[in-house]
Amino acid sequence: MRTQVAIIGGGPAGLLLGQLLHRYGIDNVIFERKDRDYILARIRAGVLEQGTVGLLDEVGVSARLHHDGLVHHGIELAFGGARHRIDMTKATGKTVTVYGQTEVTRDLMDARLAAGLTTVYNADNASLHDFDGDQPRVRYVKDGVSHEVTCDFIAGCDGFHGVSRQSVEPKVYERVYPFGWLGLLSETPPVSPELIYNNHERGFALCSMRSSHRSRYYLQCALDDHIDNWPDDKFWDELKRRLDPEAVDHLVTGPSIEKSIAPLRSFVAEPMRFGRLFLAGDAAHIVPPTGAKGLNLAASDVHYLSTALREFYADKSAAGIDDYSRRALSRVWKAERFSWWMTSMLHRFPGTDEFSARIQRAELSYLVESDAAKTSLSENYVGLPY
Amino acid sequence: MRTQVAIIGGGPAGLLLGQLLHRYGIDNVIFERKDRDYILARIRAGVLEQGTVGLLDEVGVSARLHHDGLVHHGIELAFGGARHRIDMTKATGKTVTVYGQTEVTRDLMDARLAAGLTTVYNADNASLHDFDGDQPRVRYVKDGVSHEVTCDFIAGCDGFHGVSRQSVEPKVYERVYPFGWLGLLSETPPVSPELIYNNHERGFALCSMRSSHRSRYYLQCALDDHIDNWPDDKFWDELKRRLDPEAVDHLVTGPSIEKSIAPLRSFVAEPMRFGRLFLAGDAAHIVPPTGAKGLNLAASDVHYLSTALREFYADKSAAGIDDYSRRALSRVWKAERFSWWMTSMLHRFPGTDEFSARIQRAELSYLVESDAAKTSLSENYVGLPY
Repeated sequence: MRTQVAIIGGGPAGLLLGQLLHRYGIDNVIFERKDRDYILARIRAGVLEQGTVGLLDEVGVSARLHHDGLVHHGIELAFGGARHRIDMTKATGKTVTVYGQTEVTRDLMDARLAAGLTTVYNADNASLHDFDGDQPRVRYVKDGVSHEVTCDFIAGCDGFHGVSRQSVEPKVYERVYPFGWLGLLSETPPVSPELIYNNHERGFALCSMRSSHRSRYYLQCALDDHIDNWPDDKFWDELKRRLDPEAVDHLVTGPSIEKSIAPLRSFVAEPMRFGRLFLAGDAAHIVPPTGAKGLNLAASDVHYLSTALREFYADKSAAGIDDYSRRALSRVWKAERFSWWMTSMLHRFPGTDEFSARIQRAELSYLVESDAAKTSLSENYVGLPY
Repeated sequence: MRTQVAIIGGGPAGLLLGQLLHRYGIDNVIFERKDRDYILARIRAGVLEQGTVGLLDEVGVSARLHHDGLVHHGIELAFGGARHRIDMTKATGKTVTVYGQTEVTRDLMDARLAAGLTTVYNADNASLHDFDGDQPRVRYVKDGVSHEVTCDFIAGCDGFHGVSRQSVEPKVYERVYPFGWLGLLSETPPVSPELIYNNHERGFALCSMRSSHRSRYYLQCALDDHIDNWPDDKFWDELKRRLDPEAVDHLVTGPSIEKSIAPLRSFVAEPMRFGRLFLAGDAAHIVPPTGAKGLNLAASDVHYLSTALREFYADKSAAGIDDYSRRALSRVWKAERFSWWMTSMLHRFPGTDEFSARIQRAELSYLVESDAAKTSLSENYVGLPY
């Protein structure tokens, strides 16, 4: 097999890249280790920046998003028993859209199928070759048979544990946080129309949602905690302890559909280009989920990469691909900073002193009183410009 | 002796409070452990918020300040070899004034003398009594003779090591930073008209000044370092290593007039009122010097305290003094947050990982590109409203 761009990984980053390249007339094949159902069963983020929505618009994969997605104009910060709204649209003119990553992935898969583009699922033991020359190759095994694909470029969109980053030796920067997030999904109406970020002495809590009838709540928990310790009743009780009184009054509880614990990590691999191999999305960087940046960063990477490849094919210019890593990393590091800052401001860090807790409180108090600080948070939350 | 308000400490906080109270017709006496010349020999901060200048205007002690002070409309941040200006006046409409704390102190002393107000210098072994009742007393020894003063209120303006805070048991919040500032004063023109804050891999450096012909430079140094290790030539060499190329070209060096190493500390004592004893300025809180907030916080404390006492005497209302601690601490904590943040963003922290250094760089890069972030820094630097 031969293609112009071999995309490793069939999650939202690889799928969006595939649609963008297709729109630019660039042939591509996606190689995915798992199958379609496995990917659609993953519960992930749900807050899309306006720029991410714009990219989905560009590839014509946003009809359902605009129909079902919830457009949010603000978020709420709760601390000291009171809630404070940050009007992001007033501050920036922009919005975010709550629409589950799973739904984005499904829409992209459907569009790819409709466009007749090739996706190879269950592609085992993928390996990347010769990307330091001009004819890279991807090898994989499917149904016990070995295959080899030649291509012009390889796009590594295969996530944090994928083969793409493991095929090179980037410099890595990492921060592991001393807590996790215990998440619960339930078929209940959200406690409030907008997300509520709660700084509480018992630990951070987040009230989020996937739709008007499906809620997603998170509790900061110990890293070595286990979901067996968290029957639904205990989760709801602990959540109520961390919410402001008005939220407690309005909270509708119900059986969990899904419950899981995730660690929080900041991670950046540099550079994001190795010859004709490009890393994009979680393959290159991880953010803690506090800033809702993970999927959105994958989208901006893929935007930079797709425009660079278009320049290469349409204008015969390598300027875009030569600049890809720098451009992507410049935005990545700002989102890493924002995610680290939101995480630092909102969580309790075990073993830190009371000074730290008071600084958090001072930061939150300043933030909700200062138009400049609210605008700064907002412009990061809705997404810095590409 | 009897007075309405006994002020402990004859530094700028106590002196400014004395002038404000005098203006409001409130009798006061200052008790100072040292003598006038000792206080005037201390080299301290030099950046006055517009609000601090306003208070000095209010008490008629700003003629020399307006004649000799340098009005600054911005600061510069240097990192990665380039310098970026933050136009604070554009962001906030306000300015800061560079005018040495020593000069402020001298002007206030002269005004106090001219007004015929009593200052007791060399007041040894001061002790504070009965401030939980309505007739507090201050005892001290002068020239071997014991004295006792009765008063309505005691204002503890005697700094971090003074007797006032030691007379009570506040809750304290503290952060000690793992580095110090090595400062050098020289009779040379400043390298640039505005302050330059330098984030450098060898450590922080600050280019500041006291006047158009007197410069003050600082280098981040190890906590256990000693000025004997820093002959002038070595200081200038190290400074040049940390400055941007343009600054190196313009730097004028010369013999040091003064050289010292100071540790960096964040400290807050709560509450700031104990019955009829009030703490103000360094007696209640310390900030690292990075945000230039120390003297300015003393000024805002003294503003709150003087208006509270005026309310007490003129309106027979205790509302102001009952609210003093809350009002003062609300502003103190925001300035503590700002000073901690500036310190965190600009220094190298020994033993931290490369992720931290990259987050600093991302924060600085974001800051100089974002109007909102620049406005946030500026509104804190010029001083949050009283």
